Amino acid sequence: MNRRGYFITLEGGEGAGKSTLLAGLRDHFSQRGVNLLQVREPGGTALGEAVRSIVLDPALAGISPESELLLMFAARGQLVRERILPALDAGQWVLCDRYVDASYAYQGAGRGQPADRIAELERWACAGLKADLTLLLDLPVSIGRARAAGRGAADRIEAEADAFFERVRNAYRDRAQAEPQRFRVIDASLPPEQVLNAAVEAVAHLFEANT
Amino acid sequence: MNRRGYFITLEGGEGAGKSTLLAGLRDHFSQRGVNLLQVREPGGTALGEAVRSIVLDPALAGISPESELLLMFAARGQLVRERILPALDAGQWVLCDRYVDASYAYQGAGRGQPADRIAELERWACAGLKADLTLLLDLPVSIGRARAAGRGAADRIEAEADAFFERVRNAYRDRAQAEPQRFRVIDASLPPEQVLNAAVEAVAHLFEANT
Ligand SMILES: Nc1ncnc2c1ncn2[C@@H]1O[C@H](COP(=O)(O)OP(=O)(O)OP(=O)(O)O)[C@@H](O)[C@H]1O
Ligand SMILES: Nc1ncnc2c1ncn2[C@@H]1O[C@H](COP(=O)(O)OP(=O)(O)OP(=O)(O)O)[C@@H](O)[C@H]1O
Ligand SMILES: [Mg+2]
Ligand SMILES: [Mg+2]
Repeated sequence: MNRRGYFITLEGGEGAGKSTLLAGLRDHFSQRGVNLLQVREPGGTALGEAVRSIVLDPALAGISPESELLLMFAARGQLVRERILPALDAGQWVLCDRYVDASYAYQGAGRGQPADRIAELERWACAGLKADLTLLLDLPVSIGRARAAGRGAADRIEAEADAFFERVRNAYRDRAQAEPQRFRVIDASLPPEQVLNAAVEAVAHLFEANT
Repeated sequence: MNRRGYFITLEGGEGAGKSTLLAGLRDHFSQRGVNLLQVREPGGTALGEAVRSIVLDPALAGISPESELLLMFAARGQLVRERILPALDAGQWVLCDRYVDASYAYQGAGRGQPADRIAELERWACAGLKADLTLLLDLPVSIGRARAAGRGAADRIEAEADAFFERVRNAYRDRAQAEPQRFRVIDASLPPEQVLNAAVEAVAHLFEANT
């Protein structure tokens, strides 16, 4: 089987349940015999992890929105070129905790960076790579923040105000509406098993397309 | 005196003598009573110093040219917004060891990133700030490398081959030719005192404009 693998991304606000779903999906793929690469953003490479520690550092509160956007794409582009593209080319499937939609939501709607600026970076910094399927875990902001609060001190982005996260949520929903073929919106207020079931069902279409 | 200060940048290949000239110019400005801010790139802010340690780390040899370009502008934009613009607005002069010309030379000519991509980043990441005067220390590559070799282990960029630094040198010279009003090309093979004299003479025009 030399066909190219599928690239699946998980998106959603803080505490929406991405990491929880990722663990469930990993087991599912393992049962189905899929050779899976699992990565997170920012991170997944030496450069990406270094950038992660910069952008999440509460001590760097003064990072400009422009620099934050550039750092995110520096990490993301490195991840695409160094790990994701080689894996897909080798027939692996790739499951990524956040990808470019997160920049449209966070750096774009959240911090006011223009969408065409982000689209330009998507084109050349990420070699134009798009997800085959994006699972959007949609959740009211208050519920997500209450869930995430259980985890201790907030990082630099988690420390933002509610209005910021409302803009993020709306941007994600708008993007899902604009690209219904790529997105599957999942009600993340449901119990974890039901969230996983919905994701498994969305992923099933890829297996069908694959046979 | 509420006028805006002047923004002066120093450019040139490895070992051309930028740091040496910077020290001489600092003394000169101090004698003339100029309130000077001196900064270096990448660096000068908490974010910039963190980025500096990433881009110069020989262990991160695999950074893609795209990610290197993005990191450089993340650091540069932060430096412009956080320190350079406020200083200029307060009437300080700013002397910067490398600025955007370095990206056209190193990430552009050196690593093949398109000039229009760099121009876009200059526009929005650096708020369009341009130097009032750029002193280009021009030197044959072999002489510069011999000088720099005296300093111990090479960083990630210093480890490049001669052909890379030839492209860098030519790009700098081309830029100087295209913008003769902004650039002053100085023969960096001359002794340090003569290099400083040439720089002082170029800077003198700014004082004249200022009175
Ligand atoms: N469907 C769910 N229902 C109730 N609680 C959940 C659900 N999914 C996850 N949780 C809980 O919510 C918290 C946040 O979940 P998780 O870490 O998976 O979210 P996340 O989207 O990865 O957050 P972050 O964006 O911060 O990485 C955890 O305590 C988790 O156990
Ligand atoms: N005009 C000069 N003639 C001879 N040697 C010089 C001259 N200027 C500097 N040097 C010597 O060359 C070496 C490199 O100089 P310097 O560190 O100032 O260069 P640089 O351009 O700042 O290098 P880098 O790009 O690595 O920061 C030092 O040892 C310095 O003493
Ligand atoms: Mg998570
Ligand atoms: Mg120097």
